[in-house]
Amino acid sequence: MSELRIDPIHKHNIIVAPERNKRPNDSLHKEETENCPFCPGNENHTPPESFRFNDDLNNWTIRAFPNKYPAIKQSLTNGISGYQEVLVETPEHNQVFRDYSLNRVINLLKAYKNRITEIKAQKNTKIVIVFRNEGHQAGASLKHPHSQIVGLQFLSNSLKVKSRALKEFFEQQNRCFYCDLLTQEKTIYKSDHFVSLIPKESRFAYECWIVPQKHQAFFEYTDDSETDDLAMMIIKIINAINIKLDNPPFNLVLHNGIYNEKIDDSFHWHLQIIPRLYQLAGFEWATGMYINPVEPEKAAFELRKLI
Amino acid sequence: MSELRIDPIHKHNIIVAPERNKRPNDSLHKEETENCPFCPGNENHTPPESFRFNDDLNNWTIRAFPNKYPAIKQSLTNGISGYQEVLVETPEHNQVFRDYSLNRVINLLKAYKNRITEIKAQKNTKIVIVFRNEGHQAGASLKHPHSQIVGLQFLSNSLKVKSRALKEFFEQQNRCFYCDLLTQEKTIYKSDHFVSLIPKESRFAYECWIVPQKHQAFFEYTDDSETDDLAMMIIKIINAINIKLDNPPFNLVLHNGIYNEKIDDSFHWHLQIIPRLYQLAGFEWATGMYINPVEPEKAAFELRKLI
Repeated sequence: MSELRIDPIHKHNIIVAPERNKRPNDSLHKEETENCPFCPGNENHTPPESFRFNDDLNNWTIRAFPNKYPAIKQSLTNGISGYQEVLVETPEHNQVFRDYSLNRVINLLKAYKNRITEIKAQKNTKIVIVFRNEGHQAGASLKHPHSQIVGLQFLSNSLKVKSRALKEFFEQQNRCFYCDLLTQEKTIYKSDHFVSLIPKESRFAYECWIVPQKHQAFFEYTDDSETDDLAMMIIKIINAINIKLDNPPFNLVLHNGIYNEKIDDSFHWHLQIIPRLYQLAGFEWATGMYINPVEPEKAAFELRKLI
Repeated sequence: MSELRIDPIHKHNIIVAPERNKRPNDSLHKEETENCPFCPGNENHTPPESFRFNDDLNNWTIRAFPNKYPAIKQSLTNGISGYQEVLVETPEHNQVFRDYSLNRVINLLKAYKNRITEIKAQKNTKIVIVFRNEGHQAGASLKHPHSQIVGLQFLSNSLKVKSRALKEFFEQQNRCFYCDLLTQEKTIYKSDHFVSLIPKESRFAYECWIVPQKHQAFFEYTDDSETDDLAMMIIKIINAINIKLDNPPFNLVLHNGIYNEKIDDSFHWHLQIIPRLYQLAGFEWATGMYINPVEPEKAAFELRKLI
């Protein structure tokens, strides 16, 4: 049984989740596919499917199902609850993001939209989190490429602080923080609908954001032409990162709006791509500060040249 | 030139520190000692020594010197400054903490006291941070065992928030948060002067704290009998962690008081030992919450049995 706790001094939320320790971990990221619960043929090792895309031969190309080892369960004694899904991105155990076709990335984004739309319809959903961890050093416990979708029926303290700060920004500036960011920062690349950039206060070296040019709180309302454009943008950015940093492990995180709150004006969804180049360590735990060893302006300039 | 920035939404402090990228990195943690700037014989590769302990043959056993690749420099254009030292803990390149004699750990703590006392005497020092990262996965860029000492002439936002919360706690409860903690938590082990415990809101699995029983804001005021007792306590805790978790990489962090502020009543120095068992990843970046897969109460119970 998971439990939500709050650090009385720093106000961090902690989820104590003993069930997580039972999940499988191929920590050496073995090439082996026989025992992989995400490989074709092992579908009966996962909970019942909630979503799939098929190819012309009726074999699945992407599938989603509830997470067997959730940190947050649907019913919890202390009032927090949520719903977690795993989305297997490809039948190929050893693929990595850079092997994906444009079509696979487009379908992945469409699958995200589908899962968000379904999960937010569940009672009391406040936010739906989407992320993918690529590489053991980026926190992936299983090698087979997958994303995670988490619907939360509560907001973490950090999300409340963020939401409040964004509302304050809007009230003071009369425009959204992210719309403002689009005018402030030098871009890495600009497509029809999106801008990629590195905020000058980014915590991690080469941390890239992809922000829609149109003010929009919720990712799931992007239309098909926007989705196609976004897929191409993600491929371009990850490709530039891979050339510059030699295929680093990375996290891709969708920051989406909050439901059942008046946030439409102040929030603006965006994606964050974080290459994992070094470890947080004693300095960060002691001070709460982050050392970014590459000037964000320089990082943006370097990636811009590689697109 | 480093620069302090603040994230306008989450209020994280970021130190943009391009100099850090020039530091050497034996990221494979080679056994090689010839090119190691911390090995005996290579003393001329480091800045001039600020401190040393010698053995009976007049060879150094511990030495400190300014960090050649500091994140924070003594003079910065934007008003932040600080002073960073490296403390080489042993002449032996391939030693790890578990190889240390009790005497070496005692001398290490005495060296910390010496460096803190000297660095805090510098103008405007607000706090002195001490930490050691053991293992590449715990953020050590060089294998040769070393600690880092950082005197800050400013406080990070996180340290300000912490200091404020501790003062509020003191005002409301009429006792210090850490004195209170000592009465609340089950201990791992209690020595003459110290208590080791795992706070129930700890962010990381098996994160251990060592807290002096006596209310004391500043580590450097511990006397020799307390230092001896603390050294033995650290050895016991790290030994239990090593048995339980198979010699994991870890961070050791000293949380010490703030100078030139009225904090004596509300602050209480303590050590934190953080085994690095898994990575922070997409979930943490998306929500700001930490998943702790081992119930702190259970972790404390398990370590207690191993002491």
